[in-house]
Amino acid sequence: NAKASSKGIPIMTRAQTSHPLDPLSAAEIAVAVTTVRAAGATPELRDSMRFVEAVLLEPEKNVVALADAYFFPPFQPSLIPRTKGGPVIPGKLPPRRARLVVYNKKSNETSIWVVQLSEVHAATRGGHHRGKVVATEVIPDVQPPMDAVEYADCEAVVKSFPPFIEAMKKRGIEDMELVMVDAWCAGYHSEADAPSRRLAKPLIFCRTESDSPMENGYARPVEGLHILVDIQNNVIIEFEDRKLVPLPTADPLRNYTPGETRGGVDRSDLKPLQILQPEGPSFRVNGYFVEWQKWNFRIGFTPREGLVIYSIAYIDESRGRRPVAHRLSFVEMVVPYGDPNEPHYRKNAFDAGEDGLGKNAHSLKRGCDCLGYIKYFDAHFTNYTGGVETIENCVCLHEEDHGILWKHQDWRTGLAEVRRSRRLTVSFICTVANYEYGFYWHFYQDGKIEAEVKLTGILSLGALMPGEYRKYGTTIAPGLYAPVHQHFFVARMDMAVDCKPTEAFNQVVEVNVKVEEPGQNNVHNNAFYAEEKVLKSELKAMRDCDPSVARHWIVRNTRTVNRTGQPTGYKLVPGSNCLPLAGPEAKFLRRAAFLKHNLWVTPYRRDEMFPGGEFPNQNPRLNEGLTTWVTKDRPLEETDIVLWYVFGITHIPRLEDWPVMPVERIGFMLMPHGFFNCSPAVDVPPSAGDIEAKENTVAKLIPNSLLAKL
Amino acid sequence: NAKASSKGIPIMTRAQTSHPLDPLSAAEIAVAVTTVRAAGATPELRDSMRFVEAVLLEPEKNVVALADAYFFPPFQPSLIPRTKGGPVIPGKLPPRRARLVVYNKKSNETSIWVVQLSEVHAATRGGHHRGKVVATEVIPDVQPPMDAVEYADCEAVVKSFPPFIEAMKKRGIEDMELVMVDAWCAGYHSEADAPSRRLAKPLIFCRTESDSPMENGYARPVEGLHILVDIQNNVIIEFEDRKLVPLPTADPLRNYTPGETRGGVDRSDLKPLQILQPEGPSFRVNGYFVEWQKWNFRIGFTPREGLVIYSIAYIDESRGRRPVAHRLSFVEMVVPYGDPNEPHYRKNAFDAGEDGLGKNAHSLKRGCDCLGYIKYFDAHFTNYTGGVETIENCVCLHEEDHGILWKHQDWRTGLAEVRRSRRLTVSFICTVANYEYGFYWHFYQDGKIEAEVKLTGILSLGALMPGEYRKYGTTIAPGLYAPVHQHFFVARMDMAVDCKPTEAFNQVVEVNVKVEEPGQNNVHNNAFYAEEKVLKSELKAMRDCDPSVARHWIVRNTRTVNRTGQPTGYKLVPGSNCLPLAGPEAKFLRRAAFLKHNLWVTPYRRDEMFPGGEFPNQNPRLNEGLTTWVTKDRPLEETDIVLWYVFGITHIPRLEDWPVMPVERIGFMLMPHGFFNCSPAVDVPPSAGDIEAKENTVAKLIPNSLLAKL
Ligand SMILES: [Co+2]
Ligand SMILES: [Co+2]
Repeated sequence: NAKASSKGIPIMTRAQTSHPLDPLSAAEIAVAVTTVRAAGATPELRDSMRFVEAVLLEPEKNVVALADAYFFPPFQPSLIPRTKGGPVIPGKLPPRRARLVVYNKKSNETSIWVVQLSEVHAATRGGHHRGKVVATEVIPDVQPPMDAVEYADCEAVVKSFPPFIEAMKKRGIEDMELVMVDAWCAGYHSEADAPSRRLAKPLIFCRTESDSPMENGYARPVEGLHILVDIQNNVIIEFEDRKLVPLPTADPLRNYTPGETRGGVDRSDLKPLQILQPEGPSFRVNGYFVEWQKWNFRIGFTPREGLVIYSIAYIDESRGRRPVAHRLSFVEMVVPYGDPNEPHYRKNAFDAGEDGLGKNAHSLKRGCDCLGYIKYFDAHFTNYTGGVETIENCVCLHEEDHGILWKHQDWRTGLAEVRRSRRLTVSFICTVANYEYGFYWHFYQDGKIEAEVKLTGILSLGALMPGEYRKYGTTIAPGLYAPVHQHFFVARMDMAVDCKPTEAFNQVVEVNVKVEEPGQNNVHNNAFYAEEKVLKSELKAMRDCDPSVARHWIVRNTRTVNRTGQPTGYKLVPGSNCLPLAGPEAKFLRRAAFLKHNLWVTPYRRDEMFPGGEFPNQNPRLNEGLTTWVTKDRPLEETDIVLWYVFGITHIPRLEDWPVMPVERIGFMLMPHGFFNCSPAVDVPPSAGDIEAKENTVAKLIPNSLLAKL
Repeated sequence: NAKASSKGIPIMTRAQTSHPLDPLSAAEIAVAVTTVRAAGATPELRDSMRFVEAVLLEPEKNVVALADAYFFPPFQPSLIPRTKGGPVIPGKLPPRRARLVVYNKKSNETSIWVVQLSEVHAATRGGHHRGKVVATEVIPDVQPPMDAVEYADCEAVVKSFPPFIEAMKKRGIEDMELVMVDAWCAGYHSEADAPSRRLAKPLIFCRTESDSPMENGYARPVEGLHILVDIQNNVIIEFEDRKLVPLPTADPLRNYTPGETRGGVDRSDLKPLQILQPEGPSFRVNGYFVEWQKWNFRIGFTPREGLVIYSIAYIDESRGRRPVAHRLSFVEMVVPYGDPNEPHYRKNAFDAGEDGLGKNAHSLKRGCDCLGYIKYFDAHFTNYTGGVETIENCVCLHEEDHGILWKHQDWRTGLAEVRRSRRLTVSFICTVANYEYGFYWHFYQDGKIEAEVKLTGILSLGALMPGEYRKYGTTIAPGLYAPVHQHFFVARMDMAVDCKPTEAFNQVVEVNVKVEEPGQNNVHNNAFYAEEKVLKSELKAMRDCDPSVARHWIVRNTRTVNRTGQPTGYKLVPGSNCLPLAGPEAKFLRRAAFLKHNLWVTPYRRDEMFPGGEFPNQNPRLNEGLTTWVTKDRPLEETDIVLWYVFGITHIPRLEDWPVMPVERIGFMLMPHGFFNCSPAVDVPPSAGDIEAKENTVAKLIPNSLLAKL
């Protein structure tokens, strides 16, 4: 392939069917699972394997560099860091690897397996794979995330447990079809929650009509029952009917589906609004590789994080392909509730690590979840028993008009230049029990990258005794209240500002604006200035937001400058944010100590992925993960920087959040700061309509009085 | 008109051509100006009158109530507060009044005139008006805002001033066509700035090519010249060439117009994106009255504030028309710069009070400023010499798709309900010298109202000596730097939560989230709760944002409750915000003391409109306006509440903000909080596509493993 040769290095287009960063295909997952199962020594062992996840074991960064340089178009030999004697180009890439988390339902053991996958036939001939176990390890004292099968099993076992049936009868419920059992992870509050047992603490709700499966049963929480389920053996190990809290009367406003009796009719005066792209979208997609305007990146997906974005780079004219980040994703989230009463104090969901944002993702629908010209990506998973499942249309890629991009109207001539902003949006939405989260990454023409989380879904409610009022929540309806809580999200950003893969030339600068001292050089007392401070090591890089001093953080390249001689950089601009409102000794903060600061910075390590450790479920180890890693206080003055941005919202429920909460948004921005020499959006063309209109309007725009003077 | 009768009160549709809140028509402005001019005692006096503004003198609220109840459809007799014996319905509304600010160019006197307008013929027969001066008053010791004619006059006089021409020659400029003189208000830094003289302190810039009027001349600031212009007499009263700062070399990246040499070509790979509304918009407009979904309100416009939104109400089924606010607008903004050096310390633009947001508004263009089906409103003004000018297409009203509105996917059935959010946007954009501001009010289907300001335009730059570095700014190009600054906006919100006009049953509650003490009732240390505190009087209602405690403010009705028995309310949710970074003794804070807190609350007074007083230009009076009014410490426990929300952004310029800054956004949200009994968005219908698709997808959405269990 002559087209692929570049700068004198002869390149051959090698047959590679999957880029090293592509998520595992359905076939690869199947092979990986089969390989692991076959490695089980006995039929009993093989039979007791449950497959929590099977994901791509991401390669070292140099493999990514090689792939992008020589194996996958657009071939970019410039991606290889310069070495003496020039790079050695291998004939093929190393084989892909799968990493599996396996739970042994018999022995309550969790193990990690690495399977090397080799292609027996090329993709064109069926893409047959073969697998080989190259590593296996039992992880002691952990519990992997809960699986959808376990949700269902837990519901079934509770609903057929005679004392439970008895307790429900006391509450006036005879029909078990009405009962909803939502398995929640137990957390770790004492030794009783230790991972030697696999536990679920279900929350119980109760619908009113057995023929209405879409009735909102969350409107009737069943309180006063203590239930502990061993979900390894699927048995109830503790049960107590502690307090007879009456079921709230069915709230007439509980429903949101047109099929149920919601009261009132839908509004009928909304006219259709269509978004048309008659010439198609402005993006190009090749496999998981996306190019749009001057951006390019790769899409990935994991059961835990959902959407991952790899190898984000900007094509900057003569400077070529300039990397911004290696990998962006949401690696954890935590939703701590503020009510100290049972069962609410237990609600501290780690929705990524205990459940899985990706595993619980939706199959999206054109016209409903997304408008415009959509490119969807499917996501493949292993299910609990080792089958392969696919969420079709799981990741949405589309363009949006985003209002004006920039404008200036010259007051002397009345002439205006205005450009519209187009953004590229990559997103997915997931459900974790009652709540929905949408995760959006927006790419802009002016070099900005925005991360946005949309929160919606159904509040997690509690029941009240008649006349009771709960200080820790909002009464939503008679006998029904919604406890206060917070939603925290952790974005892990493996940055690469002007760094090729494997280069480590970034640092983080904190900027605070300072008020100048009064004095001779500040006689009018108006002066202030931005003060920059390099975050020199990990323990000095545990930082909190402070809008009063316009605090933000710049990831900058230590060896590349812009035209003014300043280092090139990208800044992290916080949106609204908060810290945990629980006391510092709160039990859930043992596992979620990473919530104690809004920003953490670490040097890149391949195995430092999840801020609460890989297995937060029932985790007994104090401060596992990020807060422990940083105690090494590794230097950060010139390294491969990973930002961990922790952002949260305090949710004091409103009546208007019921029965389904209108979307709330929270997020942050990555913004070029001296990365470019001037606005990269200056070359966005005017809208078609503008060009035609321009000539006839000049005179009209200038006020008469002014025209006379000019 | 039988249709208009309601609840037994006989109503006649009276011929009224203008609602009492409609902005003055062009005809009314012309009559008002003519009336005032005719009232001048001598020809000389009449000749020296300059017309700064001629606006509607807004009526008392009871007049608005009467108009909406009996004179303008939709007739709403329920708007009249109940009185014993029933309301007295007048046969006609009181005449409309115009309020004019007149500057006497001869005597340097500013006066305010009130003209009563009477219709001689009905609108259908030409709408002839007659005016009568009903009040006139000279306002001592003030300077009204600067006018566009003065910008031009000031430029002309400076450019023809021989010492200036000499100074420019020293800087290598012979061609005066290249020179740009931007008149800035002087502010008030000492007695020398007193309003006994009408002053301008121009900033000088210089283009490079005389045949390129759209070349970005702001790239070459001329520093070192001290110029003071008396714009009453249009003479230069002080001139000094203090320091020869060389003109920066013309930055090759300075231009943004396709017509000039910008370097490079426009990107060509952006495909068209069209927004179509084949059945038209969902809003209805009648004059200035707008109805959309369940919202209705009236559009207004003033030269100072630009867009005003009146009588915002929500139609809430059986509860009928529920008012939310009487009047929303941006009443002031201030842009203080952080460089203590001449001339930058003088840059503290009060863009509303010194220039006028409305006066400097743009004529907007379909497809460029706005997409979709647009309804534009024109704005009419008096110009300086008393002529009437119209900005066509000044206010834009249109609908936008705004992503998902709410969603829940039931994990048991896999069935999802999702709704798209539509919003109604009302906006205008203005230029004040180099900067552009877009002001947007968004109305949502879930009862939210969002205020959003978009900042764009050209940075205000300074020149540097060769090798000089300025601590108080960002070097943008060789010899060119942009000082740090802040942009503050003041939204004045005359609220009316469930209050008819003239009712005064609102109060403001501050909410702070508190961490619960550890102890027996909080054994897991997770507890926190929202604490409410009524802001009882003005001095207790000077408040700052504090995201760490999720601080927000609820305007609630003291006499109306929702279904849980809590008062109905709307909460003000801050976005990102800051306070001034200047020292507390900064000179500009004399005039802008209202920036010292993010929230102020006052009881409604008709004449308390502008937080720095009506005439901030050269204002010598310490703390005039809001900060003085609140010293009365008037009670706020049950009154007609006016919120003054002050929000700002600290702008540390980036290279990427040059030559035109990509839009930055800042704003806040008004959100129903217990105003409704549940989400008002629950009755938004599903998208058309969703309804068709639903039946066939049920089985497919449920994972196989889960389906087996259910
Ligand atoms: Co929430
Ligand atoms: Co600015």
